[in-house]
Amino acid sequence: MSSKRILLSESEMPKAWYNLQADLPEPVPPPLHPATNQPIGPADLEPIFARALIAQEVSQERWIDIPDDILRVYAIWRPAPLVRATNLEKALGTPARIYFKDESHSPAGSHKPNTAVAQAYYNKQEGTHQLTTETGAGQWGTALAFACSQFGIKCKVYMVKISYQQKPYRRSMMHVWGGEVTPSPSEETNAGRSILAADPDCPGSLGMAISEAVEAAVTSGNAKYTLGSVLNHVMLHQTIIGLEAEKQMKIAEDYPDVVIGCVGGGSNFAGLAFPFLRHKIAGKDIRFVAAEPQSCPSMSRGQYRYDYGDTVKMTPLLKMHTLGHSFVPAGIHAGGLRYHGMAPMVSLAAKLGLIEAAAFHQLECFEAAKLFAETEGTIPAPETSHAIRAAVVEALKCKQTGEEKCILFNFSGHGLCDLGSYDRYFAGELEDFAYPIDRIQAALAELPVLE
Amino acid sequence: MSSKRILLSESEMPKAWYNLQADLPEPVPPPLHPATNQPIGPADLEPIFARALIAQEVSQERWIDIPDDILRVYAIWRPAPLVRATNLEKALGTPARIYFKDESHSPAGSHKPNTAVAQAYYNKQEGTHQLTTETGAGQWGTALAFACSQFGIKCKVYMVKISYQQKPYRRSMMHVWGGEVTPSPSEETNAGRSILAADPDCPGSLGMAISEAVEAAVTSGNAKYTLGSVLNHVMLHQTIIGLEAEKQMKIAEDYPDVVIGCVGGGSNFAGLAFPFLRHKIAGKDIRFVAAEPQSCPSMSRGQYRYDYGDTVKMTPLLKMHTLGHSFVPAGIHAGGLRYHGMAPMVSLAAKLGLIEAAAFHQLECFEAAKLFAETEGTIPAPETSHAIRAAVVEALKCKQTGEEKCILFNFSGHGLCDLGSYDRYFAGELEDFAYPIDRIQAALAELPVLE
Repeated sequence: MSSKRILLSESEMPKAWYNLQADLPEPVPPPLHPATNQPIGPADLEPIFARALIAQEVSQERWIDIPDDILRVYAIWRPAPLVRATNLEKALGTPARIYFKDESHSPAGSHKPNTAVAQAYYNKQEGTHQLTTETGAGQWGTALAFACSQFGIKCKVYMVKISYQQKPYRRSMMHVWGGEVTPSPSEETNAGRSILAADPDCPGSLGMAISEAVEAAVTSGNAKYTLGSVLNHVMLHQTIIGLEAEKQMKIAEDYPDVVIGCVGGGSNFAGLAFPFLRHKIAGKDIRFVAAEPQSCPSMSRGQYRYDYGDTVKMTPLLKMHTLGHSFVPAGIHAGGLRYHGMAPMVSLAAKLGLIEAAAFHQLECFEAAKLFAETEGTIPAPETSHAIRAAVVEALKCKQTGEEKCILFNFSGHGLCDLGSYDRYFAGELEDFAYPIDRIQAALAELPVLE
Repeated sequence: MSSKRILLSESEMPKAWYNLQADLPEPVPPPLHPATNQPIGPADLEPIFARALIAQEVSQERWIDIPDDILRVYAIWRPAPLVRATNLEKALGTPARIYFKDESHSPAGSHKPNTAVAQAYYNKQEGTHQLTTETGAGQWGTALAFACSQFGIKCKVYMVKISYQQKPYRRSMMHVWGGEVTPSPSEETNAGRSILAADPDCPGSLGMAISEAVEAAVTSGNAKYTLGSVLNHVMLHQTIIGLEAEKQMKIAEDYPDVVIGCVGGGSNFAGLAFPFLRHKIAGKDIRFVAAEPQSCPSMSRGQYRYDYGDTVKMTPLLKMHTLGHSFVPAGIHAGGLRYHGMAPMVSLAAKLGLIEAAAFHQLECFEAAKLFAETEGTIPAPETSHAIRAAVVEALKCKQTGEEKCILFNFSGHGLCDLGSYDRYFAGELEDFAYPIDRIQAALAELPVLE
């Protein structure tokens, strides 16, 4: 009997992150300043980010050593298991072999701490006393609060006010780890005060929360800002996922034909995919599928062009797949996938034909999530259910063709703080949303033409 | 650098449970019939429990093989990690070595599936179509729903109505795994109907839910009832925890001086402790501490005598440490520890002087839980926080004396579905309850005198 879970010992944990920039056939286009539209350099970012992270953002080195103090914190839950989804295979009646990398066992319940821990560490090294960030439903905020508690840094999270009120559990988690959580818009920043002056009952948005978190960082003596996805250094830190999976696949004496992850900003997909992508660049035959919501299909329906990272045009412009920064996705329960853009590294890989996208409706994703819970046990986060759906689709294709493919997907997080979504699904209260072509076209029409 | 987590491979998972009954110097006193007060035999239990489980209840065999189909489901999350709590040690400044066995990674988030899976399996073998049970806050109900989904048995949970309304998340988990959840008292049973006739707004209680679940089992053609703690066969199934820990301690080249678990019905404590207890019976110097709430101190303040397992005197009488079946514990957040009695096997071990009890107030337990989350990462269940508090007390004793003791405790579950309790703790809304001596004496005075 072969093992259900393929485990690595702590001594087998990768000691360096993999930087795909070293192997991409084209360089990642530089970010542009939002006021001048000119390329910005590392110095422009220093008021906001730690220097070591800025250096990683532009590094062309293939391997970047993981400091011991980060490995020590990773060891709380890493190496993460690679699991053979034998029960799911059986339920589907597929000849495919399905594996998933289980990132749900981190204290915060998702892959997010892989980069939160790194960002907290480098900031601590550079004397930062406080990290600020924004959070929507709270996955990123909880990861950062946990990471800050490990390094003794203060954590300040601006949480979208409507989520703060309606989704109290991740807010509670941040409190347990000593994080300070402020509903946004708040009276604490100029940005927040001006929004509240115009609309005292404003429910907030991720764009507003970003404005507050950045302002709080730059106006404070020794605070910095952090971001949980999209940026190159975030993708870098997440590659520990794929590097572990690579070793585990070897132990299983197997190798993936298809690698799958859900995409919002792109980081959990990149984390699993990039280490395998270097094998594809070197000639290996392997497919990569980025699973996204039909209601927010930035990869499959967006354009590859410069756009702002936020809705209020305060961040640098990034070359990426985008639906337009003014596009507001429908209120699906996979909150972490409701982002108009995509990581520039993931976008470039897609433009180069290295990866493909697939878009799914939320009801078929919840259906896949329920099947996964009934077979493999763990209840998936709504975001993760998109990757599961994509894996099920691939496995059912194999059932039709008889191909014995090897499918690997990223189980990015559990759904224990998202059970209200399942309640609504079972109550029949959830709906699928039509592909919003008119609104996407309108949002794209607003973008500056820069090339 | 030694490993933070000590992992076992699937092939190292124990293949038999350990039955302490084979080594206890005295036999466990038999249960008595609630109507006749006479000892009851296996046949009396057959309308309620699967035959294999009844056989395990009275077995004197030292080792009982774990069937392959159970091992296959255990492999979803087992073997569970043994973790060296280095960060906690450092925060306490103790010379003690602290280890915890991490049972929080099961799909249901606690140790409960260890027995739920076994009970579902044996029932499936004997043709049972449906399992019924009661649940309070929902830990046991979720575990059984998960287990039933693995074996394709229907699961019917009577959930105390006030919990059903106020704690929806574990109810949602049961739904995801296909469990049917009915708020109790309900119109579905004679017991429920008679309660509702007297009080249509009755909020329910665990005792009432037990009545409904047992009635639903015995009045149905092929349904059986299940219990998540207290009984001998439940203790047996949980010993996989301690058997794994024993192997892991060997890998760590260490051995516990003190073994700690929280106790409600006794099963997670027994699971970790019993395999080590056989070494104590064989002469080894090792202490066992059962950590319980000050507001429900059945081990430290109760009497060892025959009492009913439920509040409505429907179950057999068990010889155990009890506060009296009519004693109603204060509304602490560690709902799983609010039980008037104690497992007969744990009680007998205490009476024989093999284990000791320690009682803690809830505020000091939440304080320990917060320290644990800030150091070791995972947010503990309120029940588990009692074991952590006891471990902290032992570690601080070592700090005073300079003794380099080895402390092992059971991390029985995470608190991700209990975050509302933490909110109330941080808001200063929780209180400690004085030792309820008068109410305990009154409840004990009601007990039948049987010896």
